[in-house]
Amino acid sequence: MRRLSLICLLLPATFCSVAFSQEQEKAIEKILLDQVAAWNAGNIDGYMKGYWNSDSTLFLSGGNLTRGYSGVLSRYKKTYDTRDKMGKLEFEELHIRIITQSLGLATGIWRLHRAKDMPWGRFTLLVEKKPEGWRIVHDHTSSAN
Amino acid sequence: MRRLSLICLLLPATFCSVAFSQEQEKAIEKILLDQVAAWNAGNIDGYMKGYWNSDSTLFLSGGNLTRGYSGVLSRYKKTYDTRDKMGKLEFEELHIRIITQSLGLATGIWRLHRAKDMPWGRFTLLVEKKPEGWRIVHDHTSSAN
Repeated sequence: MRRLSLICLLLPATFCSVAFSQEQEKAIEKILLDQVAAWNAGNIDGYMKGYWNSDSTLFLSGGNLTRGYSGVLSRYKKTYDTRDKMGKLEFEELHIRIITQSLGLATGIWRLHRAKDMPWGRFTLLVEKKPEGWRIVHDHTSSAN
Repeated sequence: MRRLSLICLLLPATFCSVAFSQEQEKAIEKILLDQVAAWNAGNIDGYMKGYWNSDSTLFLSGGNLTRGYSGVLSRYKKTYDTRDKMGKLEFEELHIRIITQSLGLATGIWRLHRAKDMPWGRFTLLVEKKPEGWRIVHDHTSSAN
């Protein structure tokens, strides 16, 4: 990012806006792919690193609203307390829209490949650049089933 | 808004930031309450005025993604083709977070009071200030049932 800032002093603004945007998209995509990798290694704590560690982090799903990182973590650990329940996570149709230099909106399909079923649905994530990196601050997940 | 801009030339920045934010929140809240009023008058076209009239408008619900204003309109008209199905709409726990001067995030509970059932769930709305006013550009709605 710092190198890009220096290059941008020498190049037209449009080029730099696109380049910054692509860099932000890649950074957000990496957070989400790291989540998938952690999930598929059975590591919910690792998966949770994608979320902002704050009492303000929101997770909405169905009719439930969970407020705060620790609440979201507990919910995941309770709902997915075995590797069978976790299954293999896959994200599809991932689309990232950069809103500001420190904010992006990610949408996509989540799917769990499990022995007995394959639940799936859609997600909308608001991802914000924090001092510690890009983090999900708002997650609205719905289920197709 | 113009009068507030003029007053802000004479007052501390913090005051104006809060005042602008409150004005934005009220403007977004009005859009949503106007939607409720239109819905409860059986007017889906009126309800749809809260959405951005654009092919980019997104509506996610369950496992479905509907892209574009006309698609969202068709979906509502198909799903709620009688006044009985529309019922009486109510929003609860409405919370609006101002992200930038032209962007807000609204969350809340939607509930339909109908003769035979009372479906409800949560919504996350991204509301953007367009030349024509504040409009929903992204709607993720989930159902508790």
